[in-house]
Amino acid sequence: QNRLPQEITYRVCASYEEVARAIEEMTVRGAPAIGVAAAFGVVLAAVEAATHGRPPAATVERALERLGATRPTAVNLFWALARMRRRWQEVRHTAPAAVAAALEAEALAIYREEEEANRRLAQFGKELVPYGARVLTHCNAGALATVGYGTALGVLRAAHEEGRLKMVYADETRPRLQGARLTAWELTTLGIPVTVLCDNMAAYLMAQQKIDLVIVGADRIVANGDVANKIGTYGLAVAAHYHGVPFYVAAPTSTVDLQVASGKAIPIEQRAEEEVRLWEGKPLVPAAARVFNPAFDVTPAALISAIITEKGILRPPFEAALRTLG
Amino acid sequence: QNRLPQEITYRVCASYEEVARAIEEMTVRGAPAIGVAAAFGVVLAAVEAATHGRPPAATVERALERLGATRPTAVNLFWALARMRRRWQEVRHTAPAAVAAALEAEALAIYREEEEANRRLAQFGKELVPYGARVLTHCNAGALATVGYGTALGVLRAAHEEGRLKMVYADETRPRLQGARLTAWELTTLGIPVTVLCDNMAAYLMAQQKIDLVIVGADRIVANGDVANKIGTYGLAVAAHYHGVPFYVAAPTSTVDLQVASGKAIPIEQRAEEEVRLWEGKPLVPAAARVFNPAFDVTPAALISAIITEKGILRPPFEAALRTLG
Repeated sequence: QNRLPQEITYRVCASYEEVARAIEEMTVRGAPAIGVAAAFGVVLAAVEAATHGRPPAATVERALERLGATRPTAVNLFWALARMRRRWQEVRHTAPAAVAAALEAEALAIYREEEEANRRLAQFGKELVPYGARVLTHCNAGALATVGYGTALGVLRAAHEEGRLKMVYADETRPRLQGARLTAWELTTLGIPVTVLCDNMAAYLMAQQKIDLVIVGADRIVANGDVANKIGTYGLAVAAHYHGVPFYVAAPTSTVDLQVASGKAIPIEQRAEEEVRLWEGKPLVPAAARVFNPAFDVTPAALISAIITEKGILRPPFEAALRTLG
Repeated sequence: QNRLPQEITYRVCASYEEVARAIEEMTVRGAPAIGVAAAFGVVLAAVEAATHGRPPAATVERALERLGATRPTAVNLFWALARMRRRWQEVRHTAPAAVAAALEAEALAIYREEEEANRRLAQFGKELVPYGARVLTHCNAGALATVGYGTALGVLRAAHEEGRLKMVYADETRPRLQGARLTAWELTTLGIPVTVLCDNMAAYLMAQQKIDLVIVGADRIVANGDVANKIGTYGLAVAAHYHGVPFYVAAPTSTVDLQVASGKAIPIEQRAEEEVRLWEGKPLVPAAARVFNPAFDVTPAALISAIITEKGILRPPFEAALRTLG
């Protein structure tokens, strides 16, 4: 995902460590996708042990720990690893090959459930998209960020199938340009009209009444309805609120974290200065200047019009609605 | 200004056409700087005629027209060319060498007045900067954008001389990165602490209460107090309003255009898609996607806390305050 759209290549990871690095380097990115990738990382650990005829405990435990330390904000990672850990604890006393098979089956179940969740939430979400809609999205919440269909972009795919979309505006999404590179590529591949803009142009489009709704994915939705998502989401939500434009979040329930009470407690990943400071190795910013590079921000529930999940569309007050998801 | 901070070179323009191209290509950029550069472009036209012993009328008229067609939004360009045109009309019946000398004197007067205006507005503006201030700015409104001291950055220079600044946060300012490249370079050169961020990170900083005020320059201030400035300014003003952060505009009165009633009537330059689509010749955005690239946006007067000019600090209602500038 660091080479699109110039190049389509596939990276094969043969060990949990390779999976962990692929997540850290954002070869795999997007909250649902890193959850599923991490689950398969655990499978690789078990397979490695089984192949060498070793008891898998040490390797599987190390893999769970290593994969959980890759990125802090998206809760899908911890959710998927928690499921793998539970399954591991159920089967840990069986033969190494049986452990590997059980963990693989669990990872495949997560994979299938996540794709199915995307397709279901898209069917709910498309009803929020009026005919002739001009939609703004940020970062990439498409098939690349998930395991198949997409969350925010899944909703737009389903809306497009019914001819509802006039134009999707895609923020380029600095510093890593997931909007310019990934969202624009996915949408053009699907035949959906897309216009890329710099992040700082979105409010101006809203002022010109060219945006009917904003839809984004999520990295973590906490108990009070606050949402962590790609840096820049919060500023869009503020602008949408000011202009009276609906602001929707689309995410599977694997993104919901009821253990955290409010967005203030979500750990926000700070990434390397070089992502902002350099462009393909060449400095943009003078060496004496500092750089601020948070990967995510938190949008308070009060700025969100609805949260679209595979179990239905949640409306404020989100705290009660999220509890009913159980 | 397209090569900083990697390289410091000076481009010498020997004809008005070279000046016009330097403005179009943004080798000279910043509303006050392009006004002064255009004035000297007119001088070059008169000098050319005098050197060849030709009557200057045709060349000077062509220069006034060509320079006025370079960029549409910043009014300083038209203001400076109008001054040059008035002086030209006063001296057009004198000898070619006298015409050139008169126009050069006028351009030098504009140059000196603009720098003096910056220094004066900075003295007014610094009083708006509290001790320990953390200030956000956008694009570049420094010496590079003017002819010496700077407007928004002039205020910050004067504030820094009194030890008022804790940190200046500089939006990188896509697509041309004037903040990352030019503002960060100017401020580090002056020993002012600066942190560069992507444009989409500014609202998150405000939510964390890390911004005490926002200050920007202007490309055109119209009769009702609406302000055209670099794209992204409007989104910052909306975010500042939402967070209760003061939002200041610093500009010499050459930026004021009382002929235009409101921001809706300001012509907004649309620049080439390639500025967003390519990075050093390499495509970032898939070819099938469209690109939106307005160079400016309009911030309505209602979102502006004060306008800092060389004649003093204007407060709302701006319409009356601007009229008193005469």
